[in-house]
Amino acid sequence: MSDLRTPAPVVYEPILSAALREDLGRGGDITTDAVMPANAMVKARVITRQPGYIAGLAISCRAFTLLDDRVEVDVRVKDGAAVRARDVLAVLSGPARPILAAERVALNLMGRLCGIATATGSMVEAVAGTGARVVCTRKTTPGLRALEKYAVRAGGGFNHRFGLDGAVLIKDNHIAVAGGIREALERARAEVDHLVKIEVEVETLTQLEEALEAGVDAVLLENMDPEMLRKAVEIVDGRVVIEASGGIGLGNAAEVAKCGVDVLSVGWLTHSAPALDIALEVEPI
Amino acid sequence: MSDLRTPAPVVYEPILSAALREDLGRGGDITTDAVMPANAMVKARVITRQPGYIAGLAISCRAFTLLDDRVEVDVRVKDGAAVRARDVLAVLSGPARPILAAERVALNLMGRLCGIATATGSMVEAVAGTGARVVCTRKTTPGLRALEKYAVRAGGGFNHRFGLDGAVLIKDNHIAVAGGIREALERARAEVDHLVKIEVEVETLTQLEEALEAGVDAVLLENMDPEMLRKAVEIVDGRVVIEASGGIGLGNAAEVAKCGVDVLSVGWLTHSAPALDIALEVEPI
Amino acid sequence: MSDLRTPAPVVYEPILSAALREDLGRGGDITTDAVMPANAMVKARVITRQPGYIAGLAISCRAFTLLDDRVEVDVRVKDGAAVRARDVLAVLSGPARPILAAERVALNLMGRLCGIATATGSMVEAVAGTGARVVCTRKTTPGLRALEKYAVRAGGGFNHRFGLDGAVLIKDNHIAVAGGIREALERARAEVDHLVKIEVEVETLTQLEEALEAGVDAVLLENMDPEMLRKAVEIVDGRVVIEASGGIGLGNAAEVAKCGVDVLSVGWLTHSAPALDIALEVEPI
Amino acid sequence: MSDLRTPAPVVYEPILSAALREDLGRGGDITTDAVMPANAMVKARVITRQPGYIAGLAISCRAFTLLDDRVEVDVRVKDGAAVRARDVLAVLSGPARPILAAERVALNLMGRLCGIATATGSMVEAVAGTGARVVCTRKTTPGLRALEKYAVRAGGGFNHRFGLDGAVLIKDNHIAVAGGIREALERARAEVDHLVKIEVEVETLTQLEEALEAGVDAVLLENMDPEMLRKAVEIVDGRVVIEASGGIGLGNAAEVAKCGVDVLSVGWLTHSAPALDIALEVEPI
Amino acid sequence: MSDLRTPAPVVYEPILSAALREDLGRGGDITTDAVMPANAMVKARVITRQPGYIAGLAISCRAFTLLDDRVEVDVRVKDGAAVRARDVLAVLSGPARPILAAERVALNLMGRLCGIATATGSMVEAVAGTGARVVCTRKTTPGLRALEKYAVRAGGGFNHRFGLDGAVLIKDNHIAVAGGIREALERARAEVDHLVKIEVEVETLTQLEEALEAGVDAVLLENMDPEMLRKAVEIVDGRVVIEASGGIGLGNAAEVAKCGVDVLSVGWLTHSAPALDIALEVEPI
Amino acid sequence: MSDLRTPAPVVYEPILSAALREDLGRGGDITTDAVMPANAMVKARVITRQPGYIAGLAISCRAFTLLDDRVEVDVRVKDGAAVRARDVLAVLSGPARPILAAERVALNLMGRLCGIATATGSMVEAVAGTGARVVCTRKTTPGLRALEKYAVRAGGGFNHRFGLDGAVLIKDNHIAVAGGIREALERARAEVDHLVKIEVEVETLTQLEEALEAGVDAVLLENMDPEMLRKAVEIVDGRVVIEASGGIGLGNAAEVAKCGVDVLSVGWLTHSAPALDIALEVEPI
Repeated sequence: MSDLRTPAPVVYEPILSAALREDLGRGGDITTDAVMPANAMVKARVITRQPGYIAGLAISCRAFTLLDDRVEVDVRVKDGAAVRARDVLAVLSGPARPILAAERVALNLMGRLCGIATATGSMVEAVAGTGARVVCTRKTTPGLRALEKYAVRAGGGFNHRFGLDGAVLIKDNHIAVAGGIREALERARAEVDHLVKIEVEVETLTQLEEALEAGVDAVLLENMDPEMLRKAVEIVDGRVVIEASGGIGLGNAAEVAKCGVDVLSVGWLTHSAPALDIALEVEPI
Repeated sequence: MSDLRTPAPVVYEPILSAALREDLGRGGDITTDAVMPANAMVKARVITRQPGYIAGLAISCRAFTLLDDRVEVDVRVKDGAAVRARDVLAVLSGPARPILAAERVALNLMGRLCGIATATGSMVEAVAGTGARVVCTRKTTPGLRALEKYAVRAGGGFNHRFGLDGAVLIKDNHIAVAGGIREALERARAEVDHLVKIEVEVETLTQLEEALEAGVDAVLLENMDPEMLRKAVEIVDGRVVIEASGGIGLGNAAEVAKCGVDVLSVGWLTHSAPALDIALEVEPI
Repeated sequence: MSDLRTPAPVVYEPILSAALREDLGRGGDITTDAVMPANAMVKARVITRQPGYIAGLAISCRAFTLLDDRVEVDVRVKDGAAVRARDVLAVLSGPARPILAAERVALNLMGRLCGIATATGSMVEAVAGTGARVVCTRKTTPGLRALEKYAVRAGGGFNHRFGLDGAVLIKDNHIAVAGGIREALERARAEVDHLVKIEVEVETLTQLEEALEAGVDAVLLENMDPEMLRKAVEIVDGRVVIEASGGIGLGNAAEVAKCGVDVLSVGWLTHSAPALDIALEVEPI
Repeated sequence: MSDLRTPAPVVYEPILSAALREDLGRGGDITTDAVMPANAMVKARVITRQPGYIAGLAISCRAFTLLDDRVEVDVRVKDGAAVRARDVLAVLSGPARPILAAERVALNLMGRLCGIATATGSMVEAVAGTGARVVCTRKTTPGLRALEKYAVRAGGGFNHRFGLDGAVLIKDNHIAVAGGIREALERARAEVDHLVKIEVEVETLTQLEEALEAGVDAVLLENMDPEMLRKAVEIVDGRVVIEASGGIGLGNAAEVAKCGVDVLSVGWLTHSAPALDIALEVEPI
Repeated sequence: MSDLRTPAPVVYEPILSAALREDLGRGGDITTDAVMPANAMVKARVITRQPGYIAGLAISCRAFTLLDDRVEVDVRVKDGAAVRARDVLAVLSGPARPILAAERVALNLMGRLCGIATATGSMVEAVAGTGARVVCTRKTTPGLRALEKYAVRAGGGFNHRFGLDGAVLIKDNHIAVAGGIREALERARAEVDHLVKIEVEVETLTQLEEALEAGVDAVLLENMDPEMLRKAVEIVDGRVVIEASGGIGLGNAAEVAKCGVDVLSVGWLTHSAPALDIALEVEPI
Repeated sequence: MSDLRTPAPVVYEPILSAALREDLGRGGDITTDAVMPANAMVKARVITRQPGYIAGLAISCRAFTLLDDRVEVDVRVKDGAAVRARDVLAVLSGPARPILAAERVALNLMGRLCGIATATGSMVEAVAGTGARVVCTRKTTPGLRALEKYAVRAGGGFNHRFGLDGAVLIKDNHIAVAGGIREALERARAEVDHLVKIEVEVETLTQLEEALEAGVDAVLLENMDPEMLRKAVEIVDGRVVIEASGGIGLGNAAEVAKCGVDVLSVGWLTHSAPALDIALEVEPI
């Protein structure tokens, strides 16, 4: 798990700094600063309240040291690990004020990223043994794509393209305007750079055959039921990557995966995964 | 509903511009630009796929005109409105390329804000008639607090403090370090500015009485069961605002509200509400 | 004084970095770099040229280390302290070039914040013994509100709301459009969140009684003379916080305070306080 | 006056947008939005409460249209004009909410810039007929240098260098480290680009003669009394520009100017000029 | 040529605004504003001084309207067009001051982008008829990648990956650390997302065969002479895309292309192409 | 050379951070992270592939430590030094991933700045002994002016004004609109601040005499041939600085310099100098 591709500080520190400014406002933590003496020291533990997968733990804890570099953070769990309820994720020690003031910013980001990792991890478990990959989409939170895509990887999933410039994905709207799958694919192939893959979304087996004939790198089977998926897998016969999409949840992921598709793409992982419940327990020292 | 307090363009346009840059990357929408001629014009409808409450519709549609000011947007539904599946929220017309390129950014923000409004609206419906308010917390997405707080208002809810500088909220961690509720409240009252309210979180009825005696503007009853809530309401007897918090969901919101509390605060509205499913349907013109 | 609520580095470092870029321009300190060898070392003392109160000393000195982290800064005086002319506030040592290049940026910010603290401190002295608080307004410099509000606290004052979202303050313009104090207050109470206080500005005793009847948390008595202030205090009779505003200077602060008001709000502290005269004395080492 | 060199929108709009976000916070103008219906329209007049000189009027009024482009602004007075108390500077019309919400941001900037212009204008009047110029320094507010330098010009003054890269100004600290005026000037002349002037600060007539001999473009006479100033003017005899600096106020500006110096540089104009008192008067329409 | 994929305003306007601020500094265009009356109007023509290909013309001219929206810009030539010396690219009319003040910013960007397009166009001409594509690399100017990649497209070239996250490109340094081509490719295939292509850089024919065996989407033949290139083309035999790289200039591009490679990648296009000489000719109106 | 005036971290770190984000995109270095284990350590040397002058070496290497502060950088050559092909400029050691991921960003900036220094150094060598200075113009890359001006200094050249607010330079377009050299100069002298020099561009000897009579600090002789240059030098006779401009390259620089001009200004140094070829050689440790 230590080999996850981790976002760089130049990517996540501006997000944390902006989030701290957003929460501190123009007056700072008026509660903590009124109630706690400046020299009060605490020890604090970051603890799960439910089982899940961890992502963005060290990244989120950077909020504490960005606020005050005297805070010491001991991260106890690696991103990608499965945890149980009441596991200690990290131990903090240092001045009470910044630890309490940064708590919400750290937990907000951590809860979201661990929530995504947990949703992903559950789906990866569900399809275990089928060889199918669980993949997220571009349905991410504005400003957080790099981190949310990372959380999916931490949960054992893979990423779809990172943005509109990452690969060609021809969808129904494109096909409608272009005048057909063949027309769209011809234009794409003429325009596209040599390290860019082309995928096309198809809704019927006829469209699938049209796409295969025109030449593609991958096909996205949109909203097909298991029977049609199996037929599609048979038609493709290993020639291109097959991605299933649309309405895939924990309940049907295994069934879809067993149809023989290579990739299950799941928008829900990033746009609707509930946050993982994580708390900070503080004690004076 | 036209009187909602709406975020200003100086607040949301930087978020949309950053989200567009995040999705366009350094190469732009390589699919659309390859497949669609520059002069292709389309009409497109923003359509719900499930019922819910609307928030941030006009704000999110600004993504289209930020990308290309030739796009025309006709917003059909006001923020705060309840909609059914297949309702038309907005109609766009203009050049195909920017409409397709901005689609995901617009839908990502819209889906999230409508999801929060829908979660809020459902809970507001659940407590209808009790007089209790549904209120969100500071458990928001980094960078999106102003918009997510707005979505809660659009769903019929109210906002808790906007940040750490908005009000004093003394929690268990503060009490532990300060050495007691009375000590914490005394310090707070001495420090705090004259337009700032003070709320204290209590977990027992003894703490509640201690807080009332020491003097507060509001009490947050943390994780109390209905029986204890009713006793607390009786003790307070209208002297201060009563907020119930902890484990409140659609299933038990009415029961909690009927205990006589003034405010139900629900972190779930902003950190775990699923996105509302909204789609863009495009046709060539 | 060590317990002042201090702005965080994520708040003030961007201000200092921008100010350094503004002064360095595109060419840097062409004087110092031409005249001083790169290896010249100096010792420098930050010294007051007039008595006053200190605010933002360590914050401003961060300009030196932001420019070059080899500069060592020994801050000798705490924010909030009273100083005399010729007091040594801080001692710097390190390479000559960055110390001279950052001098103006550091002194500009320090002079302004100490000027505000000094103006505040003088007024706090003037009302000593009356129990009245000296409070600043939203009449701050664009971009510097968090720091200027802090300088007021360092001078012994308190803060009014931090921004438009911090509390409800109904002024003459609102009353004019709303159609009356009662109407304005009713709308405010219906809309406002449970941790937000409501204050109303009144110019006559009739308005004051109307406001008290309609229910408020605080009243702002605008431009009343001492006689009317005393009557107002009598009418309020301890029910709500009383703030006096308008034309309050060092000359009349005590008189106003003795009328029995709780708060004196003074725009002048932040929009017109003269800078405290502070210099940097450098000697080669 | 129409020919003043005016800062560009790319310079001042980011300052206004940041100031609006600073005041709106994360919740917006909770007072106005609660009290005023969204469709309330008003007319408002920007009015002086004291005489002065105007600077940054149109620039500051951009705050209203940045917040809502439906606001119409009719600027009635040009920057650089002298005004009396109760003059109407601008007339606004449009929706009530943005006009009230942007009021403080607009007035804060306007008050500061007009305050600087007024201080400058008073000093320019004081030295009228002497041929001496009134000039500001680098003692400006962090982030506002371009606007404050402009306000000085609007008041009839001139600008000193815009930053550390604008000209060489050798001060006492430089001379101390360099080992003498001659040494400092020699190094400067060898290093400096061909369009850069060199000025040296001198405190005695001996230093002045040393500087003139070594060759300079301008001399800054620091803290000299009128008698010494007159001697210095005699010594210089028109060979270089003469700038007087240190302790120059409205009381002694004419006396200093009459000594025959070319330039009076006055830090006070930008670091300590009181804001001009300007108000917004609103009426429903 | 109207179908080029053009960068969006949200991408290029921040670059232009920053460049304007960089050139205006804190004092603005002191020459133009001193010499030209504010009401002087001019007509100006953007004219080539040498033949070339055009890129970023409309984008660069946005500098004029960003500075002052009263300037009217009539763009006469489309990006991608070939032009001769003395061709009129655009005609401006409006107030003299902003047209002269924005001139250098507009021409600096335009000259650079047209320089890249011209270099690309020359190379595309050189390989015309061979079927080989001319492709740029990641050797772009910090902050300008999106625009420089666009300029290459405008010149008839194609783009390599837009950044480190666009495709896998295994180079000598990777192979050295990984322990061999096969090891590197195996790891890459296991990790990489389904829409990402894998290319490997090889320096010998042995390495080429090793890469083909291990499975790749493209091979980059580094610094091979024509004879070795021809052998490599024979070995690959159409199975994967072949890219030639290293030391390709106008002198040998045709020779390399005729070896049968698919892609010529040329770092020089973006890191060393001389600017196209373009001038602004102004006449009073 | 250690005494070069070096840009500050507050100036160059934002450029490097933005460049890293531009290259990392939203997914990071997918190649390195797939192929290299997280714990792989390397040693790497930054090596020239051609002779030249060095500029921005330490600045560019900051990219490595900004990406990961565990990387150690040992800079072996000072900016301003002349180097041969295969010289080792710096030695890096640390984790393989960030060293490879930051390589391109570091080399892109370094190559450009060293390219400018090399072009400058060559021209400085060409005019050695003539006393003429080599000077760059405002024809710099958007966003990089401070660094490119620095690279010129590192190459032994000098800088022209840093931006539009640095000095008055009256060009043909100004003269045309102003109605003549004398008119333009009179206006400039009346407006301009006391530390600002005035230069005028002339194309004929008649214009030159007109300028000298009207009074200037420097003259820019535009596109004059050697014979005319020599006449101009004679006319000026040491009264003002003489700058030659237009069409100056390595081939004719010495000839121009020998005409007796003080300054050769060369736009080519910054807008068209080819990058210096620098590589990173990596070995596992």
